[in-house]
Order: sequence, then C-alpha cells, then structure tokens
Amino acid sequence: MGWGDLGAFGEPSKETPNLDQMASEGMLFLDFYTASPLCSPSRAALLTGRLPVRNGFYTTNGHARNAYTPQDIVGGIPDSELLLPELLKKAGYINKIIGKWHLGHRPQFHPLKHGFDEWFGSPNCHFGPFDNRASPNIPVYRDWEMIGRYYEDFKIDLKTGEANLTQLYLQEALDFISKQQSSQQPFFLYWAIDATHAPVYASKQFLGTSQRGLYGDAVREIDDSVGKILKHLQKLGISKNTFVFFTSDNGAALISAPKQGGSNGRFLCGKQTTFEGGMREPAIAWWPGHIPAGGVSHQLGSVMDLFTTSLSLAGLQPPGDRQIDGIDLLPAILQGKLIDRPIFYYRGNEMMAVRVGLYKAHYWTWSNSWEEYSKGIDFCPSQNVSGVTTHTQEEHTTLPLLFHLGRDPGEKYPLSFASEEYQQAMERISIVVQQHKETMVPGVPQLNVCDKALMNWSPPGCQKLGKCLKPPESDPKKCFWPH
Amino acid sequence: MGWGDLGAFGEPSKETPNLDQMASEGMLFLDFYTASPLCSPSRAALLTGRLPVRNGFYTTNGHARNAYTPQDIVGGIPDSELLLPELLKKAGYINKIIGKWHLGHRPQFHPLKHGFDEWFGSPNCHFGPFDNRASPNIPVYRDWEMIGRYYEDFKIDLKTGEANLTQLYLQEALDFISKQQSSQQPFFLYWAIDATHAPVYASKQFLGTSQRGLYGDAVREIDDSVGKILKHLQKLGISKNTFVFFTSDNGAALISAPKQGGSNGRFLCGKQTTFEGGMREPAIAWWPGHIPAGGVSHQLGSVMDLFTTSLSLAGLQPPGDRQIDGIDLLPAILQGKLIDRPIFYYRGNEMMAVRVGLYKAHYWTWSNSWEEYSKGIDFCPSQNVSGVTTHTQEEHTTLPLLFHLGRDPGEKYPLSFASEEYQQAMERISIVVQQHKETMVPGVPQLNVCDKALMNWSPPGCQKLGKCLKPPESDPKKCFWPH
Repeated sequence: MGWGDLGAFGEPSKETPNLDQMASEGMLFLDFYTASPLCSPSRAALLTGRLPVRNGFYTTNGHARNAYTPQDIVGGIPDSELLLPELLKKAGYINKIIGKWHLGHRPQFHPLKHGFDEWFGSPNCHFGPFDNRASPNIPVYRDWEMIGRYYEDFKIDLKTGEANLTQLYLQEALDFISKQQSSQQPFFLYWAIDATHAPVYASKQFLGTSQRGLYGDAVREIDDSVGKILKHLQKLGISKNTFVFFTSDNGAALISAPKQGGSNGRFLCGKQTTFEGGMREPAIAWWPGHIPAGGVSHQLGSVMDLFTTSLSLAGLQPPGDRQIDGIDLLPAILQGKLIDRPIFYYRGNEMMAVRVGLYKAHYWTWSNSWEEYSKGIDFCPSQNVSGVTTHTQEEHTTLPLLFHLGRDPGEKYPLSFASEEYQQAMERISIVVQQHKETMVPGVPQLNVCDKALMNWSPPGCQKLGKCLKPPESDPKKCFWPH
Repeated sequence: MGWGDLGAFGEPSKETPNLDQMASEGMLFLDFYTASPLCSPSRAALLTGRLPVRNGFYTTNGHARNAYTPQDIVGGIPDSELLLPELLKKAGYINKIIGKWHLGHRPQFHPLKHGFDEWFGSPNCHFGPFDNRASPNIPVYRDWEMIGRYYEDFKIDLKTGEANLTQLYLQEALDFISKQQSSQQPFFLYWAIDATHAPVYASKQFLGTSQRGLYGDAVREIDDSVGKILKHLQKLGISKNTFVFFTSDNGAALISAPKQGGSNGRFLCGKQTTFEGGMREPAIAWWPGHIPAGGVSHQLGSVMDLFTTSLSLAGLQPPGDRQIDGIDLLPAILQGKLIDRPIFYYRGNEMMAVRVGLYKAHYWTWSNSWEEYSKGIDFCPSQNVSGVTTHTQEEHTTLPLLFHLGRDPGEKYPLSFASEEYQQAMERISIVVQQHKETMVPGVPQLNVCDKALMNWSPPGCQKLGKCLKPPESDPKKCFWPH
C-alpha cells in the first residue's frame, strides 16, 4: 500500500472511512518511512528496530539490490537478532502474528522460535499459483504446523479476485483480542495481512465496491477490517490501554498499475525504489485518551521506531549491546515534540539517500536497469526526472543530488550545486552521513543463497494433511536479484 | 491553486488548518472542475453559468488555444451575457467583487456595469511589473475609479515576495460583510483574490512560515483569510444563512514550479491543459446547520454550477432564453444526491475531452507545441504519458483515448480500444458528445483582437491621482496565443 492510498492522504476516491476516522481520532504521520522499499527487509527492520543492512536482510550478490525471501531462499532472521516479541515476553506479553511472516521459512526461522506465541498465516507471500511439481503452493500455518496451502485449501481466485483471506485474518485478530482481554494478559498483535500485494484479492462482499477496481476493493476490505478491530477494542473496554499503529511495508508497486497498483500520491516512483514513492508510508497512531484526536505530526518516523516505541510502552529498554535505529516516538505522539533524526534510504547494501529535516540527498540513484526497463519493467511509469530516475546506477557520493521535500515533494527539481542553500544543507547532511558510515557494522547477509530444495515442499504438519511434496536435490546457488 | 494544495486533499505538508476545518464542517467535493484550464474563461464561466465557448471567452485565432484578457485585449464580457450579480439584484442582493475581475478592462466591461454594486480590486492579473512607457502597471479600482496601481501604490516586492494585497482583500471582505449584516441586506461576495498566481506574494507575517516556500506562504495566508471570514460570519451570527464555497479557477501552474508552482496532487499536468491537473479543483461547500458536517461528495461539479446554485439559493430561476451549463448542486449538497451530468473539457474553441461517470474520453490531446516545449515551456514537467501528453495537436475524434479515473486518476493507462469496457463506455459517451455538439451555438469570440492602445494607460480616476499615461497609437492585431 502506498502513501496516497487512504482518503486521509488525498486518495481522490476517498473510500477509507475507518482509517480516516482512525486518523481523526488519533495522529496522522505524514513523514513516516519504511526501512526498505520492499517487503522482507522492511518487516525484519520493524521487528528488530534495526536497518536491514545490520540485521542481515540484504544481499551482497550485487550492488544496491533489492532482495527478499522467496520460497527458495536459504537465509532468514538470524538467532542473534532480538525481535520485539522476544523482548515483550519479558514484560509478560502474549505475542501473536497473523499473516505474512516473510523472515525465512526454514525451521530455525519459524516465528514461534523468535518470540511469537501464536501464528496464523504464511511464511511467504501468497503470489503464485504454483503447481505441485515445479514449486509448492505457500503453506498456511497455525502455530507450529501447516494447516493447508494457498490456492488449495485457502482459495484465491485469480479470475475474480475473490479470497476470504483478509476475513480469516480479521476473525483471527478479533478472537485473539477477546481471548487476551478475558485472560487479562497484555498482548502484542502483529496483524501482517498480505492484502493489496499482487495478485490482488478481496472478499466477495467487497468485490466491485470500489471506484478504484480490485485494488480499491482490497483497500476497502482492509479499511473495514481495521474499523472492526478498533471497534472491538472499544467494545471490550480496552481501547484506552491498547496502542494501535497502522502503516505499510513499502510504497505501492506501480509496476502492478493500473489493474493492481496503488497510489503513492504525488511522490516519485514506487516500490523497489528509494524515491519517496517507494518508502514514504501512510501511518496512523491511535490510542484514545492518550493521543490527542486529530493530531498531525511531521516527525520523521520509521517502521523501526515501532520496535523502540513498543518497548517503551511496555516499560522496557531496547537492548544495549547493539545499534538500534528505531527511536521512541512517544514524545512525538503524546507531547507533539519533534525529534531531530535522519532517515536513511537503503537498497540492499547501499545507502542510496538520506533525509535530514526537509532535505533529501541522493548519494546513488537507480530505478532499474535498461535491460529490465526495455522489457517493460517500470517502477516509475510515465515519470522521468532527468538524471534522477536513472536506468544505470549513478554515483553522486561526491556531489549528492539534493531536494527540498517541502517545496518539491515529487523530487523533480534538484537544488543547484552552486547555491548557498545546497552548501548549507549538505554541510549538515555530510556530518550525519559520515557518522552513520563510520559506525556501520553490516550484518551477515542472509539473502545471498537460494536453493530450490529448501522450498515449502514438506512443512511440519504436511503428513497429517497428506500434503508433503518431494523436494528436488539440493542445488544451492547465488540468488539472482535483478534490481 | 491546484487540487492537491490543501491538507484535506493530501498536500504532504498539511498546512491549511482553516480550509481543512471548513471541509470537516462542510462538504468536500472531490470531482469538481473548472470550465477552462486558465483564468479569464474560467471566471467568465463562473459568473455566467455558461461554457466560455458560449459566452465568448475564447479565441478562433488558432485551434484549441488558451486565451485570456491581458492588458491589450480588445474584448471582454458581452452585454448580452447575464451575470450572476445582475440576476441576484432582482432578489435584493448587494453584490461585491473583491480582487481580480479579468472579464475585460475597457469601460463597457467594468464590473459595476455587469451587476456588481461595489468593487475593490484589479481588472487584470498583477503580474509584471511593467514600466510606465512600454506598458502600464495594473490599476486597482475602488468602484468606478482607480485608486492606484500595483507595484506603485500597492506594493509587491518581487525580491522578498512581500505584499499586503491579500490582507487588503481580507479586510475589505470583513468590512463588507459587517456592513451588509448591519443593513440586513442579503449579499453576494465574490472574493476573487489573485494570490498564488505568479509572481507569488504573501504578507510579511506569512513569509517563511511554510514548509513549501513562498507558494506555501501564500496558501497559508489564503487559508488564514478564509478562516477569518468564516469566523466573522459566525461572530456576526449569520453563518447559518450564508452559503460559502471555496474553489480555484484552474489547476496549479506547474510551469512555475518548483519556486512558485502549486500541486495538482497525483493528477496529470497542470494549468493550460485539459488533463485532470489542469481542470480538477479543490472545492469545499460550507453552510453550518444545512450542509452535514464532514460530508464528501463525488458529484461531478463545475464552477458554472455556482451560478445556478446561487440563483437557486436566492429563489431565482436561471434565464430561460439561453443554454446554461451549470446545474443546481443543492440536491447534491443538502441531500447527498448524485446528479448524472457530463463535464466538458474545452481549450479555446475545441472540446478536448469529456467526462461521463468515471470515464474520461480525450477527443483531442495537446500539452503545448514542440517549439514552446523546446524552449523549456513545460506544462507537464517530468511527466510523459506516451500518446497522451502530446506536443502536436492529436485528433482522436474517431477513436477517443479513454481513461477510467477511479482506477487511473493520473491518466496514464488508456483503455484498450478492443475491450468491451471501451465499447460500452464510448457508446454512452458518444451520445452525450453528439447531443452537446448538435446543440452548441458558439458565442462571438471576444479574445481574438489585441491593441496596445487599449491597455490601462488612463483608467477612470487617473487624473485625480496624476497617474494618466499616454497610450500609443491604435494598432489592432490578431492576438497571438501560443498554446
């Protein structure tokens, strides 16, 4: 989902009354970022409070490459990483993940081995479908074992776009919340639905209800579901001690437009890129009685802050033995403070850009290769900012491209290198970047090796279901990351 | 000002608290259009309820050319046109225009000859400055006579962007409203400030207050002024019988970006074009106690509807002896009805496009000529939709380019001509267009002839001020309209 997909963020169809109401009862974050322009690294960053380049969710197979956890990935979240639920456990929290995990699907990466107490969902994204010979369909887990597979036991009709996945995830969320409320135990629910990812789906009751086509139907269903979760919290009388945050893991995938692509508003490009369209996210904080209603924040925020902020809410300190990139947003949320901090835009192993205040400096630019582009793979459709949306990797480390995101949120007009404004801004930014680079200790890259033998052929529980598949022989290879 | 310039419409800096509040207390129109992608014709349409091609605010000097009323224009609003204030007079209204008139500056076109009782403002736009020999500065009128000129008596500092014009217009509005309230007379106030037009200006107290630079400062000042006007109505106890509508005369001029250009959100191109960015406008209706708070309407609306709607509010009928293009929006505003009606996108003498429901069909496309474009005149900066943002006038009358504005508000993905969706939509649209063309009786074009001798050399009142200038000899010529 992209920055521009919600009514509160200017989507012209304005079809998200529940999320818009969540914003009007809570706080809208207009300058909130993910830590990577695609799924797995973004989610790893959210749960560890650390940049993917630190927690290992990146590749060194190529320079500045986007990498994630497809079915044949060998790596996943290292045991050495401390995940939010692991830490929350210490404060007595019960932790549940509903939906897409995406931090590795081999046994050692199972969410219940990384702090979660419960899981209903899938290790990888639902795309496919696959057949049972070349590649298995993605399994759906309940806790330790699979209970079926997408397209087989959990229907996704690619023709009509119909699927009840979001409804299943919603019901699971409502049940979990009810259970926790009656047991009086504090809980952390990571509601990581994979809806709006292509191939897009929605429940029957939402199909055709949007002006925006199937993608809009999916957004409406998410909107409706969030509304139901918030109402449930209110009905149970626990809204005043439940902190809720809504955001997305990357910008809308414009490559899926117009049929399945969302909106990044007026921002440049989309998913896979380090332009604003790829990394600035819709974000809403909600906590009635604590967060002033109708608040709007220009705090530079990150999904990694949800780690630190959640710990703070639970009365815990972030681990002191490692670099944590997330900050505690509570002063911004509760007292309207603005905390000075930079935002780093990474693509794989490269810091492509940095934002300090309203200035964004691009040290590297790349949308994708000419080769891909010539095949119609376009992350910036009908957008071409000369020298900015480049199809070769362009280094600007000695003279970064600088934009003022207030006057020019669309990153169309680089500041003149000769201007005083450029000099002054870059002076400040250079110090931030230098500090960042000097203290950077990259983690062991987890997304380098792929092996078809490690796909979801026979996940735990497959025998009970008669759904075990025979893997091919092991053949580990460098994963190919084209962009 | 463009569709995307207000917080309520998704401007990322969200700096318009008063207009956003106006929206939350009133009704937001998301599908509201001007009748022309530039100033004079748009304003002529607003005041007559008729398309510029009917009321004469167009040119036949070239095909599909944008034309307006610069200082050397010979034409203006014909006496045969019935303007909103002329009609409102019959219901006892006192009518005032504050700001830019732009319907001709020769004596016969004076606003007080066309129904207004009072005027404080200018006949043309404030751009310049000019010197007193080649061309006069634009006069500022109080009622029948000029009281000074821009840049001379009414300062606009191009270096700092400082001017107190909006403050003068605000004070004039507050005074007029107070006067009308005490005399118990119904009033029509046309608050036609020219702020946000380049060269952009703002008052000292607003300079530097926006994240968006000088343009944002000007928007903030407008926002603040609208807030003060609404509060004034409330303080005087007349808000419940005062209907207020906020909109703009064309999309943001992207050619003035980044320093002086606004935002059309995610819509394509800007001012001067018949793409959404040129003609879809921010629009808010406000009438406490009548309009449900927080309303959102997808009614296809037009500035021309303000003519018919205002007459309806005053208990008057629109004139029956001519084609009126505006419709009465009250059923949409008060009862949430959706009235089926098309929107026509004209550029000069040509119907470039039409919107019916969510479909928009382009019969002609043109941004501007290659010649202009090669000189850096770009109405669609960094946007290039192949075959859509064309630099030659492209005729598509036999097979219009069709877009679904719900799925594709950015007009990037024309529907396949072979698709069933195309066939069905075009069947409906063709009937609408055929009817429109069959009944179209164009007015006498007013914007064909220019003559430097007719500029504002010696407006009425100049003698008292010692500000009469000597005109050159008359030399009427065809005006040159490059785009």
